[in-house]
Amino acid sequence: MDSMKKRATVRAYSQQDISPELLDELLEIACRSSNTGNMQAYSIVVSRDPERKKALAACHFNQPQVVNAPVVLTFCADFNRFSKWCAQRNAQAGFNNVQALTYASIDAVIVAQTFCVAAEEKGLGICYLGTTTYLAKEIIELLELPPLVFPVTTVSVGYPLEPPKQCERLPQEAVVHSETYRDYTPADIDRLHLAKEQLPENRHFVEINHKENLAQVFAEIRYTKKDNEHFSDTLLRAVKKQGFC
Amino acid sequence: MDSMKKRATVRAYSQQDISPELLDELLEIACRSSNTGNMQAYSIVVSRDPERKKALAACHFNQPQVVNAPVVLTFCADFNRFSKWCAQRNAQAGFNNVQALTYASIDAVIVAQTFCVAAEEKGLGICYLGTTTYLAKEIIELLELPPLVFPVTTVSVGYPLEPPKQCERLPQEAVVHSETYRDYTPADIDRLHLAKEQLPENRHFVEINHKENLAQVFAEIRYTKKDNEHFSDTLLRAVKKQGFC
Repeated sequence: MDSMKKRATVRAYSQQDISPELLDELLEIACRSSNTGNMQAYSIVVSRDPERKKALAACHFNQPQVVNAPVVLTFCADFNRFSKWCAQRNAQAGFNNVQALTYASIDAVIVAQTFCVAAEEKGLGICYLGTTTYLAKEIIELLELPPLVFPVTTVSVGYPLEPPKQCERLPQEAVVHSETYRDYTPADIDRLHLAKEQLPENRHFVEINHKENLAQVFAEIRYTKKDNEHFSDTLLRAVKKQGFC
Repeated sequence: MDSMKKRATVRAYSQQDISPELLDELLEIACRSSNTGNMQAYSIVVSRDPERKKALAACHFNQPQVVNAPVVLTFCADFNRFSKWCAQRNAQAGFNNVQALTYASIDAVIVAQTFCVAAEEKGLGICYLGTTTYLAKEIIELLELPPLVFPVTTVSVGYPLEPPKQCERLPQEAVVHSETYRDYTPADIDRLHLAKEQLPENRHFVEINHKENLAQVFAEIRYTKKDNEHFSDTLLRAVKKQGFC
């Protein structure tokens, strides 16, 4: 419980490798997670080879943790294995659609997060690579994912080079609603974001990005409409290519 | 670590309530999870009211755990709050697209699973309701989710009525791949599914469903092509209605 409370993302790793025994134990724990109908419609691709990690980094805008971490895991929605099993058993499978991709993707993320919590409890540090669905096509090619397999999220993992520093979160009332969704008034929005906006590191972040405020940094530099729309197109094309619609 | 290894889904709960303090603590821990750009593009709707849970159960094909659990949580992708913040700060937000929905959904599942692991460590039992994306439209209406908020997954939680029994998992080699995806030969498929197919409870399951084998029960009764396609249509309509495409 303590490691969950104190956790923070770790992007810089020591040279220490992760033993195959520990990795196996963590993967075993991860696969104990809940999943839809116990179909286990997911697969995990383990990258350890430096050359492969270098190629994989290119699919994640060269974020350095992909190369620096001893282990990188790509968690995939996978209805290939299940559909092959069905075909061999004369069962009429129909998982080549968006709903099946959705529940397989949810299951892949559940497995990923259990892995992360267990890894952190063992003193490892993790970083999610949200870029997985941006360049899915390139990841599919590199990892040789067949139809009905889709990369959903990626985690780099290793021993932290230094103790990670937690960053801020919104107050709980910002994200938790009782019985029904309580929409936000302008005053709510101001109040709930005040502490975040006033943090020295966030003010510095605004300054170095030459913007008026933090929201502009996010919406106009880091996660722009143009990028979101472009990567929506690439995502939908990759989903189609893998046979899910 | 131990609770993660021994865990199993819990669908039957005792009468014991979950204290507000414990629920708050678990939600606080959940929100320490990784999320895209620390945007926290998720919301959690807490259902405790019996009448509301009854109505919510109807959106989950009346699975009894929705009514029986003291607490039911609906984890949503949420770019409403963030976009409102941007609008108030004169920042041009562009999160009304599939890529933004995708990363917000991944974040919602990460938070959900951290909640579940923490809850289980505290002696609670959980059950995921994969039906959330099937009847998303009905859930959106019941929970009054505004545009740019989408229900991704639901968790019922309470004290277990009896110790949960673990069900089987495929051997690790079935789901873990080294460096690249190793596709399955027919012999692999047979070997990897053998233990699962031979379990007495799974053989019984085949028998009571009057099918030839387990794959047929899954593909032709539980998760049919017809249902998957129908619920793909309802999902896409709900995604559009919420303004994500």
